[in-house]
Amino acid sequence: METRQWVLDSRPTGEPTADDFALETTELDDPDRGEGLVRTLYQSVDPYMRGRMRDAESYADPWAVGDPMRAGIVAEVVDSEHPDFAQGDVVQGERLYWAEHAVVDGDDLRSVNPDLAPVSTALGVLGMPGVTAYWGLLDVGEPTPGDTVVVSGAAGAVGSVVGQVAKLGGCEVIGIAGADEKTAWLTDDLGFDAAVNYETEDVRARLREETDGVDLYYDNVGGGVTDAVWELLNVRCRVVVCGQIAQYNATEVPTGPRKLAKLIETRGTVEGVLVRDYGPKQWGEAMRQLGSWIAEGKLDYRESVVEGFENAPDAFLGLFEGVNIGKQLVQVAEPKYADI
Amino acid sequence: METRQWVLDSRPTGEPTADDFALETTELDDPDRGEGLVRTLYQSVDPYMRGRMRDAESYADPWAVGDPMRAGIVAEVVDSEHPDFAQGDVVQGERLYWAEHAVVDGDDLRSVNPDLAPVSTALGVLGMPGVTAYWGLLDVGEPTPGDTVVVSGAAGAVGSVVGQVAKLGGCEVIGIAGADEKTAWLTDDLGFDAAVNYETEDVRARLREETDGVDLYYDNVGGGVTDAVWELLNVRCRVVVCGQIAQYNATEVPTGPRKLAKLIETRGTVEGVLVRDYGPKQWGEAMRQLGSWIAEGKLDYRESVVEGFENAPDAFLGLFEGVNIGKQLVQVAEPKYADI
Repeated sequence: METRQWVLDSRPTGEPTADDFALETTELDDPDRGEGLVRTLYQSVDPYMRGRMRDAESYADPWAVGDPMRAGIVAEVVDSEHPDFAQGDVVQGERLYWAEHAVVDGDDLRSVNPDLAPVSTALGVLGMPGVTAYWGLLDVGEPTPGDTVVVSGAAGAVGSVVGQVAKLGGCEVIGIAGADEKTAWLTDDLGFDAAVNYETEDVRARLREETDGVDLYYDNVGGGVTDAVWELLNVRCRVVVCGQIAQYNATEVPTGPRKLAKLIETRGTVEGVLVRDYGPKQWGEAMRQLGSWIAEGKLDYRESVVEGFENAPDAFLGLFEGVNIGKQLVQVAEPKYADI
Repeated sequence: METRQWVLDSRPTGEPTADDFALETTELDDPDRGEGLVRTLYQSVDPYMRGRMRDAESYADPWAVGDPMRAGIVAEVVDSEHPDFAQGDVVQGERLYWAEHAVVDGDDLRSVNPDLAPVSTALGVLGMPGVTAYWGLLDVGEPTPGDTVVVSGAAGAVGSVVGQVAKLGGCEVIGIAGADEKTAWLTDDLGFDAAVNYETEDVRARLREETDGVDLYYDNVGGGVTDAVWELLNVRCRVVVCGQIAQYNATEVPTGPRKLAKLIETRGTVEGVLVRDYGPKQWGEAMRQLGSWIAEGKLDYRESVVEGFENAPDAFLGLFEGVNIGKQLVQVAEPKYADI
């Protein structure tokens, strides 16, 4: 059968544009033994994808020009040659494709239970961003009750979970985001102690007002926001580097760190987190805990959904404008085989 | 009695100059109970002093204009009202004074045994810089045999010890320094596997040649040297931030970090070290171990000695020109009471 898919048409310089993507139609083989044909319901767009579009080695290989763009998807199984999956099952997989249909290795899929939560959450709070938030905060950040925790990109898919989990752990939590609608969500609905709009407020001045310095900084953003927080780091601070979206489109990427002297003053630790370091057992643990909190009404989430597969590039580009609140998704299709 | 002492005459902007220091004569009280009158033999000058001359809170209070400059000294006891010390004893103290004589609290002094090593080493390899190197490398850096360790400021008082201790621990060690005389010392005498002259060589290119990336970076320098090393950090790297001398004279201090994304790629850790976090037991342990290695001929050191108390500011200013090899000292006087 045929499928439409988005391919990387050219490597962007600076801000990506719609011209960097091309919509193609391609023929799919029938699934071999162990494989399945899946039909995408939701496709994820994530800031990390900008890194894969760059022609540079990082923790993963760059995508080739002309190859399909990759993404996490939630899909329904149309046809399965894998013993664990049957037609109508809802599944989730990472590093799959910006495609309406795909033939994939069944070992790259996990089952999604539609009775637990909306299946789209398998790409957000109960998926990669949720697990990143959970282990990035708890394993790398090692918060202690009473810590002052600052989260940048706080209204995003990761940041919104980080802040709520920190609150559940007895921390004081201040979020930084780029719109009043976002900061209102953080304080009014998610229980953050305070939230700062970096577009309209002096971040450093507000943090000075709201805190006695920062014990744990969970950074999804980098750039000027991080510069502002940096000055307020406390002795024995922990900085978790999870994302640096403010710099992903930079054409002249600065080559090194500045003001590391702050770490001598504070004996602070700055450490990176990458979700792929956590194995299936830790994914399971994080998702069970996050799922319980959702069921108990202790953890809230939002999704920003763009409808229509043809709008996937726009959804991706919107990440750099900060248009999303919570997880940004593309709804590719309504279910046809799955009973949800 | 009277003493001469150097006071902070003005706060430097950018590079300090001789005009920022004033030589004064002041009257000393007789020592009270628990105090001692000491006569300085050697005075230390250290990069950290630049931070204290700045009017900014850091891990320690700034020095006041008009107050005596502070330093670690090695001295002989002239007159003691403290039970542990007697005339002719050699003692060492930190945070004392740029002064020829001083009345000090005996509890701020430790005995120096002149039979173990030249007493000047109590300000270098067997003093604060040696302990900083020892614990900064072993406790914060946590090297593993086989690690590739890069040290900036490698021919300085701290860096030269770091590199040798890393070699003793089975690491591959590359030093970065700013003169051929220094790099020759590192490789020919101290057993470094390689050394790079950042003034004449492309640091990044040389490190690419010499290593498969950097597992542990012990940074005494910051600035462009650190930018060059940053690109070569390996997965699970450790960066120990011990000094940032390249930035201490900056008038526009950059406010935050750049390219933290490297830490996501590597899941690396950047952590600051400050020697005052280590208590007397850890000082003792470090000095016993370093002393043994010196006695066994496994640890070498050099000292750069400026003679004459009136030249103390010049010795200090020379640190920022990189004129010293090993520990920079000022010889203030020959011993008169001590039998050494």
